[in-house]
Amino acid sequence: MANKSKFAKESLVTMTELVLPNDTNTLNNLMGGRLMHWMDIVSAISAQKHSNRVVVTASVDNVSFTHAIQLGNVVTLTAKVTRAFSSSMEVFIEVIAEDIPGGKRIESNQAFFTFVAVDQSGKPIDIPEVIPETDQEKELFDSALRRRQLRLVLAKRMKPEDANELRSIFKTTPING
Amino acid sequence: MANKSKFAKESLVTMTELVLPNDTNTLNNLMGGRLMHWMDIVSAISAQKHSNRVVVTASVDNVSFTHAIQLGNVVTLTAKVTRAFSSSMEVFIEVIAEDIPGGKRIESNQAFFTFVAVDQSGKPIDIPEVIPETDQEKELFDSALRRRQLRLVLAKRMKPEDANELRSIFKTTPING
Amino acid sequence: MANKSKFAKESLVTMTELVLPNDTNTLNNLMGGRLMHWMDIVSAISAQKHSNRVVVTASVDNVSFTHAIQLGNVVTLTAKVTRAFSSSMEVFIEVIAEDIPGGKRIESNQAFFTFVAVDQSGKPIDIPEVIPETDQEKELFDSALRRRQLRLVLAKRMKPEDANELRSIFKTTPING
Amino acid sequence: MANKSKFAKESLVTMTELVLPNDTNTLNNLMGGRLMHWMDIVSAISAQKHSNRVVVTASVDNVSFTHAIQLGNVVTLTAKVTRAFSSSMEVFIEVIAEDIPGGKRIESNQAFFTFVAVDQSGKPIDIPEVIPETDQEKELFDSALRRRQLRLVLAKRMKPEDANELRSIFKTTPING
Amino acid sequence: MANKSKFAKESLVTMTELVLPNDTNTLNNLMGGRLMHWMDIVSAISAQKHSNRVVVTASVDNVSFTHAIQLGNVVTLTAKVTRAFSSSMEVFIEVIAEDIPGGKRIESNQAFFTFVAVDQSGKPIDIPEVIPETDQEKELFDSALRRRQLRLVLAKRMKPEDANELRSIFKTTPING
Amino acid sequence: MANKSKFAKESLVTMTELVLPNDTNTLNNLMGGRLMHWMDIVSAISAQKHSNRVVVTASVDNVSFTHAIQLGNVVTLTAKVTRAFSSSMEVFIEVIAEDIPGGKRIESNQAFFTFVAVDQSGKPIDIPEVIPETDQEKELFDSALRRRQLRLVLAKRMKPEDANELRSIFKTTPING
Repeated sequence: MANKSKFAKESLVTMTELVLPNDTNTLNNLMGGRLMHWMDIVSAISAQKHSNRVVVTASVDNVSFTHAIQLGNVVTLTAKVTRAFSSSMEVFIEVIAEDIPGGKRIESNQAFFTFVAVDQSGKPIDIPEVIPETDQEKELFDSALRRRQLRLVLAKRMKPEDANELRSIFKTTPING
Repeated sequence: MANKSKFAKESLVTMTELVLPNDTNTLNNLMGGRLMHWMDIVSAISAQKHSNRVVVTASVDNVSFTHAIQLGNVVTLTAKVTRAFSSSMEVFIEVIAEDIPGGKRIESNQAFFTFVAVDQSGKPIDIPEVIPETDQEKELFDSALRRRQLRLVLAKRMKPEDANELRSIFKTTPING
Repeated sequence: MANKSKFAKESLVTMTELVLPNDTNTLNNLMGGRLMHWMDIVSAISAQKHSNRVVVTASVDNVSFTHAIQLGNVVTLTAKVTRAFSSSMEVFIEVIAEDIPGGKRIESNQAFFTFVAVDQSGKPIDIPEVIPETDQEKELFDSALRRRQLRLVLAKRMKPEDANELRSIFKTTPING
Repeated sequence: MANKSKFAKESLVTMTELVLPNDTNTLNNLMGGRLMHWMDIVSAISAQKHSNRVVVTASVDNVSFTHAIQLGNVVTLTAKVTRAFSSSMEVFIEVIAEDIPGGKRIESNQAFFTFVAVDQSGKPIDIPEVIPETDQEKELFDSALRRRQLRLVLAKRMKPEDANELRSIFKTTPING
Repeated sequence: MANKSKFAKESLVTMTELVLPNDTNTLNNLMGGRLMHWMDIVSAISAQKHSNRVVVTASVDNVSFTHAIQLGNVVTLTAKVTRAFSSSMEVFIEVIAEDIPGGKRIESNQAFFTFVAVDQSGKPIDIPEVIPETDQEKELFDSALRRRQLRLVLAKRMKPEDANELRSIFKTTPING
Repeated sequence: MANKSKFAKESLVTMTELVLPNDTNTLNNLMGGRLMHWMDIVSAISAQKHSNRVVVTASVDNVSFTHAIQLGNVVTLTAKVTRAFSSSMEVFIEVIAEDIPGGKRIESNQAFFTFVAVDQSGKPIDIPEVIPETDQEKELFDSALRRRQLRLVLAKRMKPEDANELRSIFKTTPING
């Protein structure tokens, strides 16, 4: 890869959205689909910043929605590239929701989106590697391999028995080993 | 659970969308976040139909985007509840994209969204069980347990060693067994 | 016409929409204009499916709005081509509105939209004929002639005295006959 | 009716819209459904002005689309109430489309929408009569009866043989008279 | 300038908007940013009409928001070019907000937007001069010079001491003169 | 004022937007009105953060648009409160536009918006003072007085001869002094 490496922090993007009536369900809570739409935009911009390329969404990892975000809340999304693999990158997204006049703030969601950098004809193109600096960046860089294997297994593009990194999650040590 | 069971097919919902300019990126392809927004709406309606309740998105399983969907394409999303667990349900979504004048049709994506049925105060409430009828419905009903364990493990709400159903995926038979 | 005929059912399209705040007036009812916007999209896709061509809206027949559809309702629109005339087609649209948690369902509206199939330069182009199969399809196929004459009379493109099919509606039997 | 009458011109409303990318189909022409959405809004405001009430759309007469309106065009819609019938009113809408830098202007469409004035509980309520002044206003006031009968016949709420005003259109003079 | 002059009234544009839920803040009042968006569109169309050219927004003068406009209100914006300077024009916008069923009407805002006429490559191009006719048009024509100097001073493109027209505002007569 | 003071930096908000087709004019450039809409949202959130109150837009200072921002560009807006006056606050907004794949970045715009903090009944309420720390914050804090006087003079709520701070701009030293 001829591209020089870039620091993780160079891809940091912050996006702020106000929850408007059309974003909410009949309980006046933000719909999950709208939040994923925002996650996709903020992480695509982060992937663009890292790669200086047009990017397309390749996959979204499991996202869980544990807190209701309400009409009028301010939603802040931050995204940063964790690791690059040839032409693809994983982006980590954190979502914070605030009821500012009410003085409430919740760490609402975390998610991982993966993007592929493409040239003008839409063909994948190699991108710079990521240099993690902080402890969190290093932890995310290391665990990116594991998440990537899980994605490949779930997409049936890797056999589970070849997913060495996943063994650490699923404790597949032989019982009589 | 006092609710009587319902057939899977009773929750079938079909949604059709036309890809408009604001749904696309600079390559004129549908953005992944917009597609997930549509997936969330169609599956929420399906979950409403099964439960006859207001529902909230609980989680989205890994989704991969392998085909570009283009400006002017017609996108058809179908959703059907696969299985219920107390107050939550899993919904299976299939996405087909067509360039009708061009005579092209691709089976674009599959996804699983999970919803929780709530009462007017937002508290979870029990829902009917699902009766699968077709082979596909039965296969999705059975495998729903496995996907549920993976969700719980990924959300750190179940220990990997307790996820019995997952063993079948990750071939955790002891080498020297 | 060199195009082979197609069955009416091949053009069936189902679209599902959730009534959101911006779709409603100050009484929290769906605005008629938004519903017609949805009718136009679902019937345009149906006309595309029949003709495998780009289509443009040619006319809308009288639509009446007799039931209020409310915020949070699920609106299901189905569209099917009834009959083709050279390069134009008539599409029949049925609208059902449901308050799913409330267990209410109304057959809200019926409408007829007409489309013209065009080539890439925007010129009209011949399309396949429609083969009706069910009783409803046959009835709609037959009555399409009458609706077409009414459209032509109202657009001042046919003289009322030449509109033979309309006589059956307006009972123009001679008083001294 | 206790309401005092009002002049037709008191209900005049002008609305101007710019055709944006999301309003257009793949030929870059304004979609018919979007235009009807705008027609509904401008005529609802006109009906509000005449009645000083909340209004709901009751019906739309046959609309034909004979000219393509293009991306970037300026669309001017004017609406004016033609006649009142107890709690309902008919509104006449004229649409002009302009390509201003290109120096082109077309009289694109005419349409009639009918609205019902309602009180806060949604019940129909009587409204002022219309006083037509100009020749066009008088012609529209007179012909409103005819259009109303056609609407009632098409909605199957009036028998064709009772629609006296329609006889003038459909020339139902007896053949052997 | 080879272009023949045009009357101010030839650029008059009226735009009517209904305040919908997504246009409002948590107090159900129209957001200032949405109103400015509408002001920009109505005045751009007015500038197009005067110049028969594509136009781009060059600047917005100080706007103050003194009255709350509420959900369901009808907002009427009128725009008219006041004066041209080579390739740029100043447009005057007046905003009226009405609660029609409530019988309330407020003259809500006034604003001045400036546009530059450009050719297809985006280069500024000369436009016709404005001929003011009414007293208000003449007053706005005269005072346009003063507003232009203030704009240039604020943009640091004119030295305050060269802004002769502004002296009349800021009473810069020498104390010992 | 019983409220304790807050640092300027506590109100910092960053918002990132992608320029989509519907945000652009026929030259594919971002419309000024859309940019002002975004400026209003980011600065309203900043004012909320400083005051912990619901806020309403009071005024916008002169904004000039000197660079075209294009379709597909990433627009980053940052906002920070500069100074408080009883119940009102001034917010400074900086806009940067980037064509990331093209490696271009422009400092596009600066603007000042003013907001009033209100209680639930919409009445103005006192807010904390601002403590500037950096050189830029201090310069903006000091010059806020001057901009405030210009706003009051332009809104005809202060006589020009009382606007002492403005004299420094308009060099009103007597010629024969």
